[in-house]
This record gives sequence, structure tokens and C-alpha cells, in this order.
Amino acid sequence: MSIRTPLCDLFDIEHPVLLAPMADVSGGAIAAAVSRAGGLGLIGGGYGDADWLALEFDTAGETRIGVGFITWSLTQQPHLLDLVLDRAPAALMLSFGDFQPFLRKIRDGKTKLIVQVQTLDQARECVDAGVDAIVAQGTEAGGHGGTRSTLPFVPAVVDVAKDIPVIAAGGIADGRGLAAALALGAAGVLCGTCFFASDESLASENAKQAALCGSGEDTQRSSVFDLARGLDWPDGWNLRTMRNAFTNQWSENIGGLRQNLAEEQARFAIARDLDDTDIAPVIIGEAADLVRAIEPAQDILYRMISQAEDRLQRTSRLVEPNNKGLRR
Amino acid sequence: MSIRTPLCDLFDIEHPVLLAPMADVSGGAIAAAVSRAGGLGLIGGGYGDADWLALEFDTAGETRIGVGFITWSLTQQPHLLDLVLDRAPAALMLSFGDFQPFLRKIRDGKTKLIVQVQTLDQARECVDAGVDAIVAQGTEAGGHGGTRSTLPFVPAVVDVAKDIPVIAAGGIADGRGLAAALALGAAGVLCGTCFFASDESLASENAKQAALCGSGEDTQRSSVFDLARGLDWPDGWNLRTMRNAFTNQWSENIGGLRQNLAEEQARFAIARDLDDTDIAPVIIGEAADLVRAIEPAQDILYRMISQAEDRLQRTSRLVEPNNKGLRR
Repeated sequence: MSIRTPLCDLFDIEHPVLLAPMADVSGGAIAAAVSRAGGLGLIGGGYGDADWLALEFDTAGETRIGVGFITWSLTQQPHLLDLVLDRAPAALMLSFGDFQPFLRKIRDGKTKLIVQVQTLDQARECVDAGVDAIVAQGTEAGGHGGTRSTLPFVPAVVDVAKDIPVIAAGGIADGRGLAAALALGAAGVLCGTCFFASDESLASENAKQAALCGSGEDTQRSSVFDLARGLDWPDGWNLRTMRNAFTNQWSENIGGLRQNLAEEQARFAIARDLDDTDIAPVIIGEAADLVRAIEPAQDILYRMISQAEDRLQRTSRLVEPNNKGLRR
Repeated sequence: MSIRTPLCDLFDIEHPVLLAPMADVSGGAIAAAVSRAGGLGLIGGGYGDADWLALEFDTAGETRIGVGFITWSLTQQPHLLDLVLDRAPAALMLSFGDFQPFLRKIRDGKTKLIVQVQTLDQARECVDAGVDAIVAQGTEAGGHGGTRSTLPFVPAVVDVAKDIPVIAAGGIADGRGLAAALALGAAGVLCGTCFFASDESLASENAKQAALCGSGEDTQRSSVFDLARGLDWPDGWNLRTMRNAFTNQWSENIGGLRQNLAEEQARFAIARDLDDTDIAPVIIGEAADLVRAIEPAQDILYRMISQAEDRLQRTSRLVEPNNKGLRR
């Protein structure tokens, strides 16, 4: 069996599931694994490293994949767009910033443009620009994001998106979440957390182990790791990670972190090199409760599809044709 | 047609939709209207006023309804429990606090006990206590709530709830939300925002008008109105409302509000008497985008059911039996 939506046609894929382009996690191996299993894997372009991108595209080999960028970061290194468009990715996803400067160049090729949004105004801008697909990202998502929650945000975006397929992101890690997203009117899902601890993920061993033990309640949004990494994120987005000693120390005292920044950045850099997840971030989302094993990405995707099929068929049987009926 | 789940059997209702017991909004008229339409209406017991409760139960008349309490507040006025149990409500819902002291007395009668939770530990406590139903409330909800989001929280609660029906709350205001909740494994939904501006709601006229114009992006969680109302809410819960001049002034400066509290409480009390929604709160949730008309509660409920039926049937048809199939 299979679940077929307009997203499958748009990207010529079998299953309406995209791998989120997680920076430092979604490399060529996992992107290719998700694509070979019938979804679409997106390499995480992150903060832009030409050599890393070339290596990960090479790793994916002939498998058809896409790539995602942090838009404000790409603006600082626009040449990276040419580099990846030369690889003719199936899709290019832009998140967090003004995508308009890149629109014409992407449209000149065959690569589909996906834009991820966190507000309805951003969704309306995507509609006006005629992007190929809109990711409606809820605050549940791991990594950077906004304040809206997926369940009420997705239908609100669908209502403004007209004929553009909407992809739900944030909090979706199994077939129940996929089935729910389709019920909300989404044409598919973009998932990070459920692939974070997969065999093919580039996440560190300690980060994977921490993710397996984590609950959504152990995650929170803050800006402490952006400060620690020296990343100049614009207002409006912050980072969901697992809580650890570093967030416990600083998330309620950003001013204090700023005052001790050089020292804390040095301490952070050492911890990251040592894969010390008491200080370095484990960047996963609220769906962490649903992730309990390190597995091949293919197994994760297949189980999601099977479970979604089961949920869609079982919930449709809750509708009773006769019954007392609506007293209209 | 109709949607039948174990919740319908538990409460002997036609549709798996409960009216949230919104304080000062969910009176006897709207509770009865939701029940007459085939759902289950819950009167909002709020901070406990015996005369008000008696009046609203009288208003509901012979219609079978339930009632909800703020648990920590009920602890301060435990006699209210006897008062409402004398009315033999179909269900009693407890939220925000320790429900254990009330367990025996409720179990001695025929009233079903619903407990609303915002964390997995609270859900586990409900399972151990053997409550009749668990409401898994997401942070999208209007009014008081926690930090988890509905979409990832509901399946995590379902996974610990064993055979106890789970009711999804927070962000659900139409049939798409209901269908999604069922896909997540919930047996039904508890809705406030979509009934806030209904004909039968006790919300003020200005509050209803503000709600109709609101978006989920205009809402936020804060404690400013609890301080302004002199309500001593425990840590862990705060209030989602629409932003207004009062939240803009104080939500980032709680210390300042505390320093000017007597003055601001007086200003707030006057504004509330004048129905001035620049200062008094409009207590709705993130699903505000989906609420656009003042209508009878029955119309809102019927449309929700019809749309959910349509979504459940249409999404089940996305499952293709042949296709290329999963390459397993």
C-alpha cells in the first residue's frame, strides 16, 4: 500500500515525507536513505560550508535529493546557491529570512522551491510569490522556529495557500502524526526528530543516545546556543533543544551569558569537540517521546507510512452512515 | 452520519465533542446547547461561586451536562463539590492541581471523572488513579495551560493511557482538528475557542467581536491577568489570551506590574466593568484563525462533525491498495 498526495506528484516521490534539512545532522547518507525509501531527503545546508556541501552531495551519489538553507545565512554567501543548483537538486528549501532575492535564479532551473514559514503573513508572501510548496512549521519542531503550534497553524496556512501544497512540520514523528497532518489539510510532512537518531544521521553518538532518552518535556526554546556559537540570529526565531546544564545555567539569564560570552564560548567549543551533551546542544523537537531506537532511516519511514495507513483506514471507519445522524 | 468513538459510549453522547468549561464563558445555556446538539457541555466552575453555579445549573434545566473546576481553587472551597454532585452531572472535570483529595467522593456517585493534564507525569498519575477520561491539553489552548503542544503531546499521552480514553484539547476549532485528533489516537476533543463567540456563550459582546478578528498570532501566554485579578495561580501554568494594551505594557515587565499592583488592579477592575478589551482579557486560543462568525453552538458543532466526516473519508482514500507499494 501507499499514501498518495499532490506532494508525491510535485516531487515525483512515493511517500509524502520529507527529511528536514537539519544542520550538521542531515548529510548525504541520510538524505539518500530517505529518498531511496520513497520520501525526499534534504541535505542541511546550515550556515554554509562549500566543501561540506560538495562532500555530502557526493555522498548521496546518484540518488535524487534536495537541500535546505537558512535564508539569512545564504544571503551572506549567495555563491552557495550556484554551487548547489549545479547539482540539480529535486528541491531547494529556504527557511528564516527573505527568500525573494533568490527567487529568479531558482525558477530558471528545474529545482522546486519550498519555503518554510512560521507566520500567516509569511505564508501569504509565499502565495504571492508562487513558490512550489509551503512548509508550515510549528513551535514543536527541533531547531530554530517560531511560536505557532502545528495543529492550529497548518489549517490556517492551508486556508491562505490556495492551490499550493502545504507540508506540516513540527511534532510529527510517527504515522499518527502523518495521518493527523493529512487530516488538517497538509499534503505531507517534513520530519527531523524521528530521523535524528537514525543510523545514517550525522548526529554524534552522545547526542543520539540523549535523544533516545528524551521527552518533549525535556525540550525548550532559547537563544543560549546561538550566543554560544556566535551565530547572529535575527529576532523572531530561537532554538528548540533538550535542556542541559548549559541551558539550565543561562536560559533565564541571557544578560549574564552576554557578560561572560568569551569565556562561555570557549567552554562551549571545548564541550562540543568532546561531544559533551551537558553543554553542547541536542537539537531535537517535542516529538522526542516517540523516538526510542537507533534504526535505519528506511525502517523509520516504512513504519510511519504503515501506521498512517492503518490510522487513516481505522479512523474512517469511525464514521457511521446510519446512526441517529445529525439532527439538522 | 455520525462519528462514534469510545467517548460516545462513556458519556452516552452522539458526537465525541466536549465544551471546555471556560470560566465566566461556559454557562448553563451554552453547556445545554452543546449537549442538545449531541456533544457534552461542561459548565465552567472557575474560581467557585455557589450562587452562580446554582443559577447556571438551573439555566441548563433538564439537559444532561457536566461541570469543570480549577482543582487548586476547589481545594479552597471543597463544599462546592457537594453542591454540584447533588446535581448529578454527567461528568466532572478537574484541571490544574491535585485531584486525589476529591477522588473518593466523586467515585461514590455516577458522575464520570475527567482529569485534564499538561505533562506525561500527570497523565501517569491519572492512569494509576483510574480516572474515567484524560484530557491532554496543548499549549495552544486559550486560558490556563502548560507548555506541551497538542500534536506531539496527544500520542505521547495515548501511549501511557492504556485503555483510558484520551480527549485532545488545544488548537481544535473545526472538523479538520477533530479528524486530526482522532488520527492521533484521541477518542474525542474538548473545545473552547470555537464556542467562545457562540450565541449562547457568556463572553461579553466586545470580547466576542475581538475574538472574531483575532489570529492565533495575536495570542500569547502570560501571567499579567492573574496578577491583575489577584489570582494566586501556582507555578507551571499561565494564561493564553489575545494580546492587548495591558499585555503589551506588562508581559515583559512582571516586576514592574508587581510594583504597581494596587494601582493596576484598580485600573483593571474598572476596565473589566466597562468591557474594555484593551485592558480586560479576551481569553481565546491559537485556533482563533478558524473562528469567524457569531453563531448558535449547534451550528458550530454540526459543521465540525460534517467536516471531520469529510476529512476522515477523504484522507482514507489517499491510501492506495496497489501502487508500487512499500519496498519491504
